[in-house]
Parts: sequence; C-alpha cells; structure tokens
Amino acid sequence: MSKEVEDLRSLVVKIAEGAARMLREEWCTESTKKVKGETIRADLESERAIFEDLKAQGLSFRMVSEESGVMGSGDYTFIVDPLDGSLNYENCIPWCSVSIAVIPPGSRSLSDAVAGAVAPIGFGKTISFGRGEGCFEGSERVSPATSESEIVFVYVERPEEAYRISRLFNYMPKLKVRSLGSSALEIAMVGLGRGLAFIDLRDKLRNVDVAAALGIARECGAATLNSRGDELSGDIDKVSVVGDVIVVRKERAGDIIRAVSEPP
Amino acid sequence: MSKEVEDLRSLVVKIAEGAARMLREEWCTESTKKVKGETIRADLESERAIFEDLKAQGLSFRMVSEESGVMGSGDYTFIVDPLDGSLNYENCIPWCSVSIAVIPPGSRSLSDAVAGAVAPIGFGKTISFGRGEGCFEGSERVSPATSESEIVFVYVERPEEAYRISRLFNYMPKLKVRSLGSSALEIAMVGLGRGLAFIDLRDKLRNVDVAAALGIARECGAATLNSRGDELSGDIDKVSVVGDVIVVRKERAGDIIRAVSEPP
Repeated sequence: MSKEVEDLRSLVVKIAEGAARMLREEWCTESTKKVKGETIRADLESERAIFEDLKAQGLSFRMVSEESGVMGSGDYTFIVDPLDGSLNYENCIPWCSVSIAVIPPGSRSLSDAVAGAVAPIGFGKTISFGRGEGCFEGSERVSPATSESEIVFVYVERPEEAYRISRLFNYMPKLKVRSLGSSALEIAMVGLGRGLAFIDLRDKLRNVDVAAALGIARECGAATLNSRGDELSGDIDKVSVVGDVIVVRKERAGDIIRAVSEPP
Repeated sequence: MSKEVEDLRSLVVKIAEGAARMLREEWCTESTKKVKGETIRADLESERAIFEDLKAQGLSFRMVSEESGVMGSGDYTFIVDPLDGSLNYENCIPWCSVSIAVIPPGSRSLSDAVAGAVAPIGFGKTISFGRGEGCFEGSERVSPATSESEIVFVYVERPEEAYRISRLFNYMPKLKVRSLGSSALEIAMVGLGRGLAFIDLRDKLRNVDVAAALGIARECGAATLNSRGDELSGDIDKVSVVGDVIVVRKERAGDIIRAVSEPP
C-alpha cells in the first residue's frame, strides 16, 4: 500500500504542476478573460489538461471537478480544482493554485483521500501529502513549524460571521487576520505551520475547493473541523458543499471552536 | 526634468529589485527568523543593501527607512520600506515587497515624490512610476485596466472599523474583500486597476509603508485620500504615521468615502 500511496502522490504532484505551469505561462494574458459567468477560459483549459493527463496514465478513474462536475467513470476518484482563486487569477494577483486529491477504489468519503497536491501558480513549491507518508514541499518531506504563527486566514460575509471572528481576539489578542483568496493554498499553509488557523464561516466551500488541502492539513497533524467542532468530510461522487471549514493546529482547536461557535 | 525623472525611476527600480532578489534568495531560511521584537534579520539586511547601493551612485541623499529612521543627509530623500509584509515573509507566505520612493531637493512633502518602485519578493514584475511619465510594470508602460475589479483590499482592527467597511456593501454588494499583507503591493495593484480600492482604517500606516505605492496610484489616475476624503500627504524628514489610507479608482471615490466615513 505504501508504494501505491507514494506513486499516487507523485502522480498528483506531476499533474498539478503541469496545469500550474500552463496557467503561469498564460499569466495576465487574454485567457484570463471571462467566458461565461464565473468561469474563465483558463479554468476550462486547466481542467481539460488535467483530465487528458490522467487519461494518459491508463488508470481506471473518474474526475470530479469544479467546472464540469463528474467526468468519466472508474475505480479511482480524482477531486480537482483546476484553478483555486480564479478571481485573483483574473485580476493578475499571483495567489492562486491547482488542487488535486485522489481517493482509492472502494472508498466513499472525502476523508479517505490517500494523496493530494496543491501547486501554487505564482511563487513557491508544490505542497503535497501521502497518507501515512507525511507532508512534502517540493520533493522534501517537511514537519510543521513549531513556532506559533499569529496569522489566521478568515473568510466571512455576513456581519454575524464577522462578530464570531471578533470573539477570537478575546483568546488570542495578537492575531493577524489575512484573506488572500485561494482556500486550498491557505489551508495548506496552516498544515505547514505558516498560519495558526483557517476559518471559513460562509457555509459554501465545496469538496473540490478543499479535498487536497484538507488531506495535507490532516497528514501534517492539524485538526480539520466544521464550526460545531465535528471532523469534516464530504461527498466524492459529485461537486457538493462541505460547509464551514476550520483548520487549526490541534493544540488551539478548543479555543477557536469556542470562539466561533454560533451564539446560543 | 523628464530625463531626470526617468533616471530616478530606473534607479529606484534597479535598487528595489536588487533587494527583492536578495530576499528571494534567502526565502524561508534562517534569515527569516526574528532578531528583536518585530524586526527580522532580512529587514535589516535589505535596508543595509539599499543604503549601500544608493551611496554607490554618488548622489547627495538621505534615506528615511522603516528600521533605522533617517540615515545620512543630503539633497535627495529616499523613502524606503526594505521589507513590506514582514509577517508574511517570516511565515514563508510569498506576498511581500520592497518599496522605494524618491523626493527631489527642495521638496518637503510625501506627495512631491517624483519616482517610486514596488518590487514583489515572490512572483511578478516590479511596478513603478515616474511623475508625468506614467506607470510601469517591468519595463512596459501600462494603463490601468478598464474593467472594474470587484476586489477591495481592507485593513481594519476594531469592530467599529469593520462596521464602516460593512456599509460598503450597500453601495457595491458584489465586492470581494481581500487582506493579503503587503500594503505597498496592494495599493500598487489598485493603481493598475487590479483592485477597486485599498482601505486601511487602522490609523497607523506610515510614510515608509506607502510612499512609493501612493505615487504609483496617483500617477495611474487613482485617488489617494484619508477617510475624510482629503488628499493624503506626509512627512519626508522622519518615519511618521500617515493615518487612514484610501486609494480608489476616481469614479468610485465618492461612494467609498461616504460609506466608510466616521458615523456622525
């Protein structure tokens, strides 16, 4: 099994990096323009490239992806966000990523992902995991930073959600709030200890947005929870909403959940 | 004068890029560690490199910089942030920059800057301006994007400040809030039309944080205001607080100022 996990990790790293390279080459050109509604051409190109790359492996698989939903059918499931942070990409703001997770045959839940990769489109190395094999940055196995970051990545929309975040400062007055625009990359950063927590209270993140990043965070030893403090999971047979997402270094999970829980 | 402006622009671009390259080479290594309080070693190294590079030009100048205050004395004033976004840099989050503005002999105000550069430490080209000569990205003269970005870069700390931001959504319900962590880079992005506005209501940004970026925004045709709607300026003879900073595409300045003004 361990060999298979490492093979799958190498595979998703290679394919995510290929798509990220393509998106970097098209940086801030015509392909960043909108085609229809929220979908930009680069998104579709990246999705197609990933699907073709997976087909070329000769695996039996289906791909669940942000733009086109379920593509193909087969034993392995690849959960793909071909361009996480499209609004940044479209505005030439280099904080965006390509995200791929793989779930082995016979599994039915997002939390069964055995490998995943988040490849930055701007600067930085690909962050990946193989279940039981650790977290990687580029080709190096990494341990989460031990020093405690003061950065919290926050996504809220309604005033009531902002209020729940403001209560965090009662526990941790020195927090610095950031909102960079690629959930996958920010969750992976928390996995690596470069942020204390990721908190999205908008109840709208989907499995494709977070599949690979949650696997990275979990493998690096972070807690991956909803805002009631329950372990997160999600569907693997369609694009679907996961809901509120909280990823936090385990030793601070209690404080964070207490602060951001719905008022009674 | 125009020749001199272009020479000064080339100079600050070259020096900012040199410092950014050094910080990129030391990316996520020991030099990102804290030396004392808020100052990280990389900050000091970058500051020293910039000062030495300026000295090597044979100009009569003083340098006003984040870490050491006023260095030297002379005709030209260079306002420098050797590492804007130090918390990101320290946490290996590649959104940070080096920022240099130059004020000619005989001028006394920050708004007299004639050239400036913001060099990203991660991905992307240096953004610069020469007064009356336009804005540049790398070596290309650029015009602000005409399509209206939905991105607003926001920095607030107190609940009352967050409330003032929430009123923005009455005017512009589709806004997307971002907070990436390098004011200079985000203000420059608004200059290039990649964000609709930058709004910092914490009353704590300093001249060194924003000197070059405000020059870029102004030269690109954006309004640079405080939260009462007055034109921003600041000292050039010491590091000092500029206060609230609002940078916005001119056609939306009225809406933004109305929304975020102090409640009566």
